[in-house]
Amino acid sequence: MKDIVIIGGGDQAHYTIDIIHKEGKLNIIGIVDAQAEIGSKKHGYPILGRQESIKEIAETHQIDGGIIAIGDNWTRYIVATEIKKHIPNFKFFNAIHPSCIIGENVKFGSGVVAMAGCIFNPKSVIGDHTFFATGAQIEHDCRIGNYASISAGSITGGYVEMEEFSAITLGVTVMDRIKIGRNSVIGSGSLVINHFPENVLAYGSPAKIIRTRTEGEKFLGKKLTSND
Amino acid sequence: MKDIVIIGGGDQAHYTIDIIHKEGKLNIIGIVDAQAEIGSKKHGYPILGRQESIKEIAETHQIDGGIIAIGDNWTRYIVATEIKKHIPNFKFFNAIHPSCIIGENVKFGSGVVAMAGCIFNPKSVIGDHTFFATGAQIEHDCRIGNYASISAGSITGGYVEMEEFSAITLGVTVMDRIKIGRNSVIGSGSLVINHFPENVLAYGSPAKIIRTRTEGEKFLGKKLTSND
Amino acid sequence: MKDIVIIGGGDQAHYTIDIIHKEGKLNIIGIVDAQAEIGSKKHGYPILGRQESIKEIAETHQIDGGIIAIGDNWTRYIVATEIKKHIPNFKFFNAIHPSCIIGENVKFGSGVVAMAGCIFNPKSVIGDHTFFATGAQIEHDCRIGNYASISAGSITGGYVEMEEFSAITLGVTVMDRIKIGRNSVIGSGSLVINHFPENVLAYGSPAKIIRTRTEGEKFLGKKLTSND
Repeated sequence: MKDIVIIGGGDQAHYTIDIIHKEGKLNIIGIVDAQAEIGSKKHGYPILGRQESIKEIAETHQIDGGIIAIGDNWTRYIVATEIKKHIPNFKFFNAIHPSCIIGENVKFGSGVVAMAGCIFNPKSVIGDHTFFATGAQIEHDCRIGNYASISAGSITGGYVEMEEFSAITLGVTVMDRIKIGRNSVIGSGSLVINHFPENVLAYGSPAKIIRTRTEGEKFLGKKLTSND
Repeated sequence: MKDIVIIGGGDQAHYTIDIIHKEGKLNIIGIVDAQAEIGSKKHGYPILGRQESIKEIAETHQIDGGIIAIGDNWTRYIVATEIKKHIPNFKFFNAIHPSCIIGENVKFGSGVVAMAGCIFNPKSVIGDHTFFATGAQIEHDCRIGNYASISAGSITGGYVEMEEFSAITLGVTVMDRIKIGRNSVIGSGSLVINHFPENVLAYGSPAKIIRTRTEGEKFLGKKLTSND
Repeated sequence: MKDIVIIGGGDQAHYTIDIIHKEGKLNIIGIVDAQAEIGSKKHGYPILGRQESIKEIAETHQIDGGIIAIGDNWTRYIVATEIKKHIPNFKFFNAIHPSCIIGENVKFGSGVVAMAGCIFNPKSVIGDHTFFATGAQIEHDCRIGNYASISAGSITGGYVEMEEFSAITLGVTVMDRIKIGRNSVIGSGSLVINHFPENVLAYGSPAKIIRTRTEGEKFLGKKLTSND
């Protein structure tokens, strides 16, 4: 069994730990977090230190690698980049809930987190550090770029392409062969029947562009869909 | 194996019995129903009597408890109250389909019925006599009050709070941290991005208050969402 | 183990083959396809010939039957009819992903394909050559006519009736007791709260009739829902 650290100590850590427990393939040594008191405990595991101390933590605890458990796509990128600066060959593991269904010829990158009930259909290609929340369904021949995410209950048709950092939020339906550009976000409950370029927020049924987005802009915990 | 009765002999009894068969942990002695002819059979089991005769039925058949299989939230409350009047320590069992996925630190009350494919994420708290239809997804840290219900294919984000008797009907998406008040009902296909107070019917995308609701008012088998 | 052919060599063949591999109950001899070069390979299996040569193919390869892996409902009918013209008692097998959940007293016809994560609730009746994409949920007591289909992530309430050749596309919610007529199609992301007659295209939330449909008209790969 490999010894790993969880990077990030918030809500996402809690269910990532649940997945790792259920998989039973990785041994969690502790948590690396930017704010929590070092030596305290979160989700049953000790806070070992900060991400910028990853090299020292890795040596002290003899870890084999880790998983970034952070919901925001851009922040996962910043953290992964920081860690690779200190340990260029740091090994990022995947946490894929054992209830997930994986078709033939699906390719997974590294650092992928997939919660309970996700379905990945044949020939889809799943990028590094992507995140799939409860029950996300990815149809056949999709391509999900690095640091992209699909929230709970959202579904894509076949041949959907999501570029890096793009996000499909809660309860979204994306039709076949749609392309969603880099850093673009689809708001909750949307029906996506058109392609979207990079750096936009779009929502509605059918989804339309609402405004542009800047690189690194947060998208969780905000009302993305609203008529007020 | 515990011997139980099913209370209610309609459609909900049929799939509750299916769940109990698949779980293989409870032995059904018969059905308690308000109308069906005593001695006749429904769903393969004998009608043993009425709920007001529960004490006599319990003694005659030496049952260990039962499950209320009734879709309407308020009616489940009335029936549970009637039964507890006759047998104060009546044991209500849960019927949770073995395909359901349950995260760490989820707390279930008693009398819960969850159909195939439901997902309960970590740290959610599920009240007594709640009902979850096919494929309902409850995210992490949710709180579902007693006698509340979530219909098929509906999903909640994290930290959603449903008060007693509230109902989320078919195909609804509820965003993170939303609160739905006591006895309020969300109509089918809605996207919920705002909190709702008690005693309202709301629907739409995004859902808006349509009218108030009285205590005990039925909500199933009605067109809750309509533009006519 | 029965020896079968896959009829149709496109995308649908790929995930049908995945299902058959996961079920481990049928042995695929090859593919019958209208266009691919005979003797070439698709999805790892040889193209054996055309559907009009099914009798010769069946004799040469000693097959026990087959499965039609074609997405378009009407085309499945044409192909099944052609095959039965040459081999009247041709045996059509089902391909039901082992992750599907099947309630008590569900009746399946022949030639049914159901992808990962579908749920069929008690007492539903599923017609011949029906197709259910990823995560389709069919509630209790539904009746799905021959050559009908339900796309990914769509859900029906109880007692829903779909006539022959009708199609529910991606991400649709259909309320209890709704009837959808022969050859009618519901566009993506729709909420269906009214009955629909035969030969119509309907969509929206709630879904409304957009136009009539002719018999045999294609419905996949088109924008069914659009405001442009």
